[in-house]
Amino acid sequence: MATKKKAVKKKKPVKKKVAKKTGKMKTTKKTRRISAKEPVKNAFYAQSGGVTAVINASAAGVIETARKHKNKIGKVYAGHNGIIGALTEDLIDTSKEPASAIRALRHTPSGAFGSCRYKLKSLEQNRREYERLIEVFKAHNIGYFFYNGGGDSADTCLKVSQLSETMGYPIKAIHIPKTVDNDLPITDNCPGFGSVAKYIAISTREASFDVASMAKTSTKVFVIEVMGRHAGWIAAAGGLATDSDTDLPIVILFPEVSFDEEKFLATVDQKVKRYGYCSVVVSEGVKGPDGKFLADQGLLDAFGHAQLGGVAPVVANLVKAKLGYKYHWAVADYLQRAARHIASKTDVDQAYALGKAAVELAIKGHNSIMPTVVRKSNKPYKWIIGEAKLANVANVEKKMPADFISKDGFGITRKCRNYLEPLIKGEDYPPYKNGMPRYIKLKNVAVNKKLKTTFEL
Amino acid sequence: MATKKKAVKKKKPVKKKVAKKTGKMKTTKKTRRISAKEPVKNAFYAQSGGVTAVINASAAGVIETARKHKNKIGKVYAGHNGIIGALTEDLIDTSKEPASAIRALRHTPSGAFGSCRYKLKSLEQNRREYERLIEVFKAHNIGYFFYNGGGDSADTCLKVSQLSETMGYPIKAIHIPKTVDNDLPITDNCPGFGSVAKYIAISTREASFDVASMAKTSTKVFVIEVMGRHAGWIAAAGGLATDSDTDLPIVILFPEVSFDEEKFLATVDQKVKRYGYCSVVVSEGVKGPDGKFLADQGLLDAFGHAQLGGVAPVVANLVKAKLGYKYHWAVADYLQRAARHIASKTDVDQAYALGKAAVELAIKGHNSIMPTVVRKSNKPYKWIIGEAKLANVANVEKKMPADFISKDGFGITRKCRNYLEPLIKGEDYPPYKNGMPRYIKLKNVAVNKKLKTTFEL
Repeated sequence: MATKKKAVKKKKPVKKKVAKKTGKMKTTKKTRRISAKEPVKNAFYAQSGGVTAVINASAAGVIETARKHKNKIGKVYAGHNGIIGALTEDLIDTSKEPASAIRALRHTPSGAFGSCRYKLKSLEQNRREYERLIEVFKAHNIGYFFYNGGGDSADTCLKVSQLSETMGYPIKAIHIPKTVDNDLPITDNCPGFGSVAKYIAISTREASFDVASMAKTSTKVFVIEVMGRHAGWIAAAGGLATDSDTDLPIVILFPEVSFDEEKFLATVDQKVKRYGYCSVVVSEGVKGPDGKFLADQGLLDAFGHAQLGGVAPVVANLVKAKLGYKYHWAVADYLQRAARHIASKTDVDQAYALGKAAVELAIKGHNSIMPTVVRKSNKPYKWIIGEAKLANVANVEKKMPADFISKDGFGITRKCRNYLEPLIKGEDYPPYKNGMPRYIKLKNVAVNKKLKTTFEL
Repeated sequence: MATKKKAVKKKKPVKKKVAKKTGKMKTTKKTRRISAKEPVKNAFYAQSGGVTAVINASAAGVIETARKHKNKIGKVYAGHNGIIGALTEDLIDTSKEPASAIRALRHTPSGAFGSCRYKLKSLEQNRREYERLIEVFKAHNIGYFFYNGGGDSADTCLKVSQLSETMGYPIKAIHIPKTVDNDLPITDNCPGFGSVAKYIAISTREASFDVASMAKTSTKVFVIEVMGRHAGWIAAAGGLATDSDTDLPIVILFPEVSFDEEKFLATVDQKVKRYGYCSVVVSEGVKGPDGKFLADQGLLDAFGHAQLGGVAPVVANLVKAKLGYKYHWAVADYLQRAARHIASKTDVDQAYALGKAAVELAIKGHNSIMPTVVRKSNKPYKWIIGEAKLANVANVEKKMPADFISKDGFGITRKCRNYLEPLIKGEDYPPYKNGMPRYIKLKNVAVNKKLKTTFEL
């Protein structure tokens, strides 16, 4: 943690000096606005978009850090189901939770306060949403806004951060990055991704060992479908299943690479002929040359109704039809992003640190930014916390660099491996009772409503 | 381990006495046959059928125990790809592996020597298979036959155990139970099952936490498809996701219960209305009232070709079509049985102990038996090693007791829970390097062929 604090300070040398001279942070211009002389403001925290194995670790970072700064932040109110909680004045009083429960968030997957898929429209398009937010924030004396999500959520957070300017309501809005898709810009990586990557790498290794055992008389090709509709970060993690210690035949289908049936089949065939078997890691977002998702094959059931299948069975059936190999296929779906039992320690640490940094930045008076992970070195892996302006984050999608995909289009390069490996490093096992992980379910005590008005979403 | 040794002795009180008197086990009638006075015989060990997260732990139990009794057992030759290795004289010399590699088998999933799906025909139907086995066994001085598998494999082992009588070739054939399906009779449970059960219970809990977070604006029903074509043991394990500490809405579809669409939809709807969401654990073997597998829906692709889908998408689509709830679905497939990273400690211990017991029974002169797990108590969980005659094991399938399924047909009873809970108890993590589990790949050095003849399968 020490290195991270230092990093934040480094980014603000002038302020740091001031702080050092006086020994008090509140002497800087920005923090004076919310200094102890003024009434202490409460904070709003919410989770947004698809949840992850470690988003609750960020929540723990936010709440535990806020509790350490009671002279700066009053209560932390969590939005029930993300921003919807703010709009509908559906707030959760996290101060009702004992320290042990907040600590347990660090090892509990999913979003403890509920998440949502809801994007604020622009001020011009829907002014009433912003007016409502201010109404609720005012009613509950909220001066800090922490939003924990991906690209769309960063956009929501950006809009809230502009309330000071646009609507004259003073607020410090900090975005905390979270997305298994790893597609936020500026930050080296996103919390949530490292644990999915670890899960997919391990699962692909384990299933490959399995199919290797069966290949003589049974399954020769195993297909695993992974998340990542737009970018192949998660699919790339499947490439970690094989390494210098453990040579395994892995073929990856990236959304970045247009599906070439002939080349794919030739590659699989070649691997099966050499190794006796082959594993295929396929991203749900793989598209054919026609630009259509491979998963969207227009399946019909016996009655002619459209059926939504995954891309794994499509690829598996193709292998069987064209190469004649017996197959098995798996669709990891939510299992991959909820798999807290095998979360990456790096990921958990970073998720927590980013939540912590968000609070520290806010009480220093920052607004409209997102703490980021800055990679300092690969071996040994070193990272610090940096920061990015939300205006540069919102609605920008980070793609996989082209040089992360091997020339044949079916594997990862050394450069990609160097990037991915530190992110899955370390195990951070949850506690167990009777063979089951003990995940916390919070009491989620509702804050009494103060407004007479309601809000229709 | 102490309790298990004792248990084996307990089952043979007379022998125990003799052994105690003389201080040497070989004074009993049966063991004299293979005493040190006669040339030491080699052992054959092979893995059969679908592999598991812990079948290699049994292999470690066999090989490590055999190495401790070098005066009784020479080398352990592993069959490359199960019984096929014996038929084709494709043997692996396990003595070429260092102790560390054999130890590492304990934490490595899959079948390290390759498995097979191959059932010996009866002596009358295919005498040449048995003659070939004897030819290979003779050539390599094999007097012990350890076969590690499920019901079909027990049948193969039974037939081999009868070679003494039927073909005049002396052999001690011991079957080591293994099957994720948990459907072998007499033994309380089968190695491999406990770890799958743990994986499914944990995954269902994790995914349920995930969908609970998303339910407000997105996914309300999550469907996970699990193995178990004939018996609902694995599906039942999904019921462990919810317990007195962690209340979750879980609906289980068992192969033992004919699918009642109306009742199922009403149950899911009720759970969603009460909890806001619902998880469905569906066995791949669920059948409709017409007796057909639900998975076998006759899906056609856009070109009218038959497509093999899983049962999870069928159930998920049904929920969407009839109740309108947004869904996600996962198919765990090989991931569940290969997931050594979250193996049950009970399962690993038992897999090892059964391999060990097999060797101990063989050197005591036993033939045509299978060591079993005998449950002595639930709380605290106590088990010992017993034994069963192979004639009583082969081709007998153990179904789930009817009183393990709740009255509504969608859950498990307290009795079922009491049975399952000890089997998933304890974690037995593999070692990690750079964030990945270190699974062993053996050298698998081939034994020089001694026969001029080959064998066509």
